[in-house]
Amino acid sequence: MPTRVVDTSRSPYAKLRSVPVEDVKLKNGFWGKRLKKLREVTIPSQYELLENTGRIYNFRRAAGREKGGFQGLVFNDSDVYKWVEAVGFLLASGYDEELHRLVEKVVNDICAAQDDDGYLNTFFTFENRAQRWTNLRAMHELYCAGHLIQAAVALRRATGDEKLFNTAVRFANHILRTFGPDGRPGTPGHPEIEMAMVELYRETGDYRYLNMAKTFIDNRGKGILGGDVNLIDHKPFRQLDEIVGHAVRSLYLNCGATDLYMETGEREIWNVLEKLWSNMVKCKMYVTGGVGSRYDGEAFGFNYELPNVQAYAETCAAIASFMWNWRMFLASGEAKFVDVMELALYNGILAGVSLDGKEYFYVNPLADRGKHRRRKWFECACCPPNVARLIASLPGYFYSVSEDGIWVNMYDESVANLEFKGNVVRIVQNTDYPWDGRVEITLSLQHEHAFSIYLRIPGWSGKTEVSLNGLKIDGNIEPGSYFRLCRAWRDGDRIELSFKMEVRKISCNPLVYENLGRVALSRGPIVYCLEGVDNAGFDVWDLLISEDASLQAEWAPDMFDGIMVIRGEGYVADSDWSQDRLYQASKPDSARKTGFLAVPYYAWANREPCPMSVWIRLVPKLGSFKG
Amino acid sequence: MPTRVVDTSRSPYAKLRSVPVEDVKLKNGFWGKRLKKLREVTIPSQYELLENTGRIYNFRRAAGREKGGFQGLVFNDSDVYKWVEAVGFLLASGYDEELHRLVEKVVNDICAAQDDDGYLNTFFTFENRAQRWTNLRAMHELYCAGHLIQAAVALRRATGDEKLFNTAVRFANHILRTFGPDGRPGTPGHPEIEMAMVELYRETGDYRYLNMAKTFIDNRGKGILGGDVNLIDHKPFRQLDEIVGHAVRSLYLNCGATDLYMETGEREIWNVLEKLWSNMVKCKMYVTGGVGSRYDGEAFGFNYELPNVQAYAETCAAIASFMWNWRMFLASGEAKFVDVMELALYNGILAGVSLDGKEYFYVNPLADRGKHRRRKWFECACCPPNVARLIASLPGYFYSVSEDGIWVNMYDESVANLEFKGNVVRIVQNTDYPWDGRVEITLSLQHEHAFSIYLRIPGWSGKTEVSLNGLKIDGNIEPGSYFRLCRAWRDGDRIELSFKMEVRKISCNPLVYENLGRVALSRGPIVYCLEGVDNAGFDVWDLLISEDASLQAEWAPDMFDGIMVIRGEGYVADSDWSQDRLYQASKPDSARKTGFLAVPYYAWANREPCPMSVWIRLVPKLGSFKG
Repeated sequence: MPTRVVDTSRSPYAKLRSVPVEDVKLKNGFWGKRLKKLREVTIPSQYELLENTGRIYNFRRAAGREKGGFQGLVFNDSDVYKWVEAVGFLLASGYDEELHRLVEKVVNDICAAQDDDGYLNTFFTFENRAQRWTNLRAMHELYCAGHLIQAAVALRRATGDEKLFNTAVRFANHILRTFGPDGRPGTPGHPEIEMAMVELYRETGDYRYLNMAKTFIDNRGKGILGGDVNLIDHKPFRQLDEIVGHAVRSLYLNCGATDLYMETGEREIWNVLEKLWSNMVKCKMYVTGGVGSRYDGEAFGFNYELPNVQAYAETCAAIASFMWNWRMFLASGEAKFVDVMELALYNGILAGVSLDGKEYFYVNPLADRGKHRRRKWFECACCPPNVARLIASLPGYFYSVSEDGIWVNMYDESVANLEFKGNVVRIVQNTDYPWDGRVEITLSLQHEHAFSIYLRIPGWSGKTEVSLNGLKIDGNIEPGSYFRLCRAWRDGDRIELSFKMEVRKISCNPLVYENLGRVALSRGPIVYCLEGVDNAGFDVWDLLISEDASLQAEWAPDMFDGIMVIRGEGYVADSDWSQDRLYQASKPDSARKTGFLAVPYYAWANREPCPMSVWIRLVPKLGSFKG
Repeated sequence: MPTRVVDTSRSPYAKLRSVPVEDVKLKNGFWGKRLKKLREVTIPSQYELLENTGRIYNFRRAAGREKGGFQGLVFNDSDVYKWVEAVGFLLASGYDEELHRLVEKVVNDICAAQDDDGYLNTFFTFENRAQRWTNLRAMHELYCAGHLIQAAVALRRATGDEKLFNTAVRFANHILRTFGPDGRPGTPGHPEIEMAMVELYRETGDYRYLNMAKTFIDNRGKGILGGDVNLIDHKPFRQLDEIVGHAVRSLYLNCGATDLYMETGEREIWNVLEKLWSNMVKCKMYVTGGVGSRYDGEAFGFNYELPNVQAYAETCAAIASFMWNWRMFLASGEAKFVDVMELALYNGILAGVSLDGKEYFYVNPLADRGKHRRRKWFECACCPPNVARLIASLPGYFYSVSEDGIWVNMYDESVANLEFKGNVVRIVQNTDYPWDGRVEITLSLQHEHAFSIYLRIPGWSGKTEVSLNGLKIDGNIEPGSYFRLCRAWRDGDRIELSFKMEVRKISCNPLVYENLGRVALSRGPIVYCLEGVDNAGFDVWDLLISEDASLQAEWAPDMFDGIMVIRGEGYVADSDWSQDRLYQASKPDSARKTGFLAVPYYAWANREPCPMSVWIRLVPKLGSFKG
């Protein structure tokens, strides 16, 4: 305790300090409901799956407590660790004895599997023992170690656990002996250990872990991984100028490098990170915040390679982007990073889990014919527990703190008790965000206290109004920035924010050939899509809308848990097409008028299979002929 | 002699016999000019490159005539063989002593490299000798052997060569001993040997070669190649129902299977071939005839996975499709196969070589920003000599012969002297095809002779007129069929064909998301594209055309060697876009009117780098509002 997600309390080059998960309670709003579902449905069902697929058994087997062969993929330990980390965050936001007992049982199994020398990976026991550390490229030992450390740190912060933590430290020390100053050169095929080592340094104050992270980062581009671009080993980290390779690996590496920067302040690293971030956001990110467009290698594609039907956009990659942007934000205090977090969270990440909390997408296309469906689990099951730990940690991102004040990063029904300069500031948010742009923030303080409150003005917002105790505040309220209110705050002070939540038509850089002449609909942070099930009578791929189409947001209380839908009018160019040929002489009929209904992208594929599309063709506005 | 491309003269299940290359002379028309360029520029420059890159040296080295290491990739022998095959076809269509001497020099180098036991592959000599036949998956020995056999058969037919032919036969016999009835089970990672073995059977009458081809085909799907779908080893051939895997491998395999069918008549094989063909043409072929859309594995994608910018569409794959369709046509006499040959030839294949005959595309996108350029050569240089042998063999496809008559498959300025039932029929074509749809065909016969002439009516043609000796012929002239004229032909008989060559707007199956609301322009067999260099003042990716746009074909005598361009009027929705962001609020200005010029796709990237696009957005026709 406290359970900070990335603890920058003492990081000299972080602009902001993170706020403990336990200090922010999400009420029954958008995310509060999902946190409840996570606790009641997702976490128990994932535990069952971890048991039923042999993932926890593997630990008992390695400990000699059960007999049989290793089950599943070499990196399956990491799924258990991510689940433990998720439980840690959940216990921080709401203690539950039964859940605590369950995680302690799992922790017992994990710890029993550790070797006397500190090594811990259930695949590399018995017959595979001799292969330890012989294939850094492919065997994911450092990756699993990183997840163990992250889980142990989260659990210790949440419950005071020392058992898993000591196990993690012993493994970390084994890694130091193997790859540290007196060890041999190494770097992981799948990054993750870097950010874990920095966090372990933050937790323990032991500088050797920070150095270990630095060494792993510095060792890239030296050919340890064969110079493979997909493993981001083609160049030294400090020479990277384009975001490439396996998306999750690339982004986890950037997380570690950002963590390193916040401790060391090395400008060269920050410059590289900014370059990679710009490249991602300007050339390689879906409108949903999804990244890693290419199936081949689960990788970032070329600039502007953003196919819709064949999008890869792994759920884990959107989560990794969220994680990286959180670190970039803590380092800099720049709102643009939170904009990307919010975009990924409400769209690319949230689509990764079904509304009932039990099924998952690994791959997230932006258009589909109805064949792509969520599944209960995967052989490579990285995404489900990753979604779990991300949602479980959500309270930890709502606020952050700087020298001079409190930063409000996210909006939802919530109560926070934030420690600021020795005082506790209670902040209550009343809002229907993300469905409604009005947020009422009420402060409770024991005595008057002068500091700044930084209010995040989302990049998507238009004209925003801010008022204090009923009085409108003048000032330059810039979208994509933090609006600073500095005063001597008093108990009961009330801030009202009003973000304009219009339905927006978003167009895409014309270098993305596939999206030319198309728009995506969005409102607030939510990106919408058309699903066939809501649009009988035409194929949603055939819809056209005109620039001046009427588009109305409408509350649909009976759809799912209640969602805001978009109703509009468009045209349908019915294609009189025999499925039996690929090309024919063009003979479009006049497009006929039709109404349509769009739903949030995150909600797609929760009903019967049907075609879906995020991008909608726009009817071009023609100038008058002069010919 | 005669140099038939696929000799079906005695194939019991072939509907048609092929006609010798030497019997058809292409005059100074579209293809005649290219054949001349091939002879004068491409073949000599490729010889230089084969020497300069160590490909011919490898043979001398293997023979012990030169010292040093093996140079290049393991399958580089095949590039030399394809060049020899090309020279064989060229010598058949026009003898040239110097070229004959040059190819004999190369043949000497090849033959000297053969082992006493008949084995021949320059990589597997000296230090690599022990690895012969140990990795059928990846090492391309059977692939290279196939190309050797094809080259030897072509050269023997063209010049009477026995040297290379005996070498090829000795290698073929070595393969029979290794993988034949008394050998071990084998099948090639890269098909090619199958069609070569069938052709060797046709050349020699030795049934064992046909059986060997059958065995290689029958051995697929047995796990010899690890069950790899990219190697088409995931299923037995007779169970295939979707065209998948590495495009060239898949199509070469189909060539071999079609050859096998023409000899054995096994219906099950034909049914599979028809299924694969339908799947390719209805779901996986570009409008240019290019195939194999996916970079990953150089493979066929999913149905309707046809990206434009990220198209792979290897030149060799379009060639392989041409080769397969030729065999399917010989087997069946169905015009649909020649339609695909023609489409691939004028577009997907011809784009693979620069207009100066010296540079090549390996990958053929359908939209580009100007960075994709032809290159003089490749480390993996399969495409350049493949283009060479295909163009060199072109005279061999113009006609074919059935029991009852002569089939006219292709149109161009040409003179043919065809043997038919003991008589020689001289056929002169006068035409400006593919720029003009009129073709005049004049027959010379020594005496009156009753037979049928089958005239190919291209699938793209609209209303076609046929006249005989000036009199219009009534009859059902169906696009995509052969129109039969049966009569007692006399010397001087004159057939006039007139295909309607309108500019056509082609639309794509709406399941190809990327092409929704777009059209491609085409005229006759030629597909057009927009290049920036011809369209100053706007970005060709931004062009829109309306359904009733005026589109005129116009002869441009000064462009390249003279081409037909398309001029039209459209609209440009100028995108006011800062390159610096990926998404923004939609704010299209009215599209302004503009003229535009389109050029044949095959001619693209022969001038300065600039954006290019085949598909053009269509202005939708809107019905009237009723709301």
